[in-house]
Amino acid sequence: MVKIKQVAIVGGTHGNELTGAYLVNKFANSPHLIQRQSFTTMTMLANPQAFKLVRRYVEKDLNRCFINDDLQNTNLKTIEEKRAKEINHILGPKGHSKVDFILDLHSTSANMGLSIILVNQELFNLRVAAYLSAIEPSVKIYSWTEPGQENSFLNSLCDRGFSIEVGPVAPGSLNATIFQKTEQLIYQMLDYLDADNQGNSGTGTNTINIYEHLRVVDYPKNSVGEIEAMIHPQLQGRDYEPLNPGDPMFITFDGQTIFYEGKDTVYPLFINEVAYYEKGIAMCLTQKKIMKINY
Amino acid sequence: MVKIKQVAIVGGTHGNELTGAYLVNKFANSPHLIQRQSFTTMTMLANPQAFKLVRRYVEKDLNRCFINDDLQNTNLKTIEEKRAKEINHILGPKGHSKVDFILDLHSTSANMGLSIILVNQELFNLRVAAYLSAIEPSVKIYSWTEPGQENSFLNSLCDRGFSIEVGPVAPGSLNATIFQKTEQLIYQMLDYLDADNQGNSGTGTNTINIYEHLRVVDYPKNSVGEIEAMIHPQLQGRDYEPLNPGDPMFITFDGQTIFYEGKDTVYPLFINEVAYYEKGIAMCLTQKKIMKINY
Repeated sequence: MVKIKQVAIVGGTHGNELTGAYLVNKFANSPHLIQRQSFTTMTMLANPQAFKLVRRYVEKDLNRCFINDDLQNTNLKTIEEKRAKEINHILGPKGHSKVDFILDLHSTSANMGLSIILVNQELFNLRVAAYLSAIEPSVKIYSWTEPGQENSFLNSLCDRGFSIEVGPVAPGSLNATIFQKTEQLIYQMLDYLDADNQGNSGTGTNTINIYEHLRVVDYPKNSVGEIEAMIHPQLQGRDYEPLNPGDPMFITFDGQTIFYEGKDTVYPLFINEVAYYEKGIAMCLTQKKIMKINY
Repeated sequence: MVKIKQVAIVGGTHGNELTGAYLVNKFANSPHLIQRQSFTTMTMLANPQAFKLVRRYVEKDLNRCFINDDLQNTNLKTIEEKRAKEINHILGPKGHSKVDFILDLHSTSANMGLSIILVNQELFNLRVAAYLSAIEPSVKIYSWTEPGQENSFLNSLCDRGFSIEVGPVAPGSLNATIFQKTEQLIYQMLDYLDADNQGNSGTGTNTINIYEHLRVVDYPKNSVGEIEAMIHPQLQGRDYEPLNPGDPMFITFDGQTIFYEGKDTVYPLFINEVAYYEKGIAMCLTQKKIMKINY
């Protein structure tokens, strides 16, 4: 049986995602909130320089810096590449981490509600996710893995763990309702890990929807790379809802609708996420997989 | 009778407020959309360097740089202080502007809907605002003037004109519904100015609510200046609604409610606006004044 001895709760991996940063700050000041009988929990503000500037990052997106080769490459010297090496030293090394579970806290301007973002489909993670979505049915599960590609997220340092992604909340701001729901979900997760460690988590079965990453879609752009259309009003805010062939997807500045031309029904996530404009991502398309998980 | 010969539509005064920047870009590419029989309309992307970085500003908030003394002061050399001087040269000089009407386009993460922000209460501006709120009842009017204090907004270059402030939309993103509503309101305004110029705007009377600025309220902070509370869930998104003595205003990270302790009912605006965290503004409190305006 898996034993969790050390949990890490990380916030501020993106410096303008204040929900996680302020929760980590609260936990650091009141550590009893996150300690449990069978394990200890540490906190980390992952990108303090970006947090101070209230920016996602200073030089490079920290949450894309955890590729093994990059962590070994001493020529990579941006603020975030150096910080990734420090974090790898504290929590990692990647693949042989000192901690047994990493919870990384994120927020988004998209209508993602309370989402769990998996970077692998380890049964342990699926069990925790299944439990959380059983007791809090609004919790959604997004599996963001790309076959044959190493994951570059902070979470990839440790096989066990995932991100909690909450929204909509504008970057650089706090929303009290979302803050409190996230906090509640963290306590429920810690309680479950604790009970599971002690062999008395009870048993249950939950049939969960896993939204598996297919591909990203960029905004329509002109020949010099300028955006030519916006998310269509009928799609805005409809994260996790089906997008069928022929459904409106974008609308140009002149009011022309651009339709989804795929052949299969997909489920768009991170629709209109602010930070993804520069990455060329208007949304992530996923497929829904139904799994029965015993927790 | 006032004759408008030259209108200026300004966007991107804040570089991450994309609604205005993309509308100005659209109008620049299709000038016939904003020309009218009796006047010409120019466009301006006010802070192109900040727009390129998708930041509110590079060094200093441009929309606080239009104080007369500052415009004359050649020692002030930040990017925005220099740009303000250029804009003053193109549209101004302040108090004797070359243009007859300035429309400055802004967006906000707060739930401000379609707001007109006045920097003075010139009858001409009140008439245009009264007309627009008559044909589009969701339009709200906020008069942000502080007695005895010179206004520092770009709009202050010209007595005639105002801002249109739209939200909620996260900085750095576009919302198609808000984009289209703003565009429509601009056309309605230009049509009115044109008809008025030609003496055939018709006549009407509208009883309007003017929300007059009283004061700003900061977030509760500790002794080292860190935020200790968030906007209370019961106040979040309730811009333009009454806040009565004893109503919940903030909630601390520990869940303690902080109540509004003023003696009079007020109307909070710009609640939880992202860009105002650094300015020490959690919201602007206003009083509601009812005025009957013939347009």
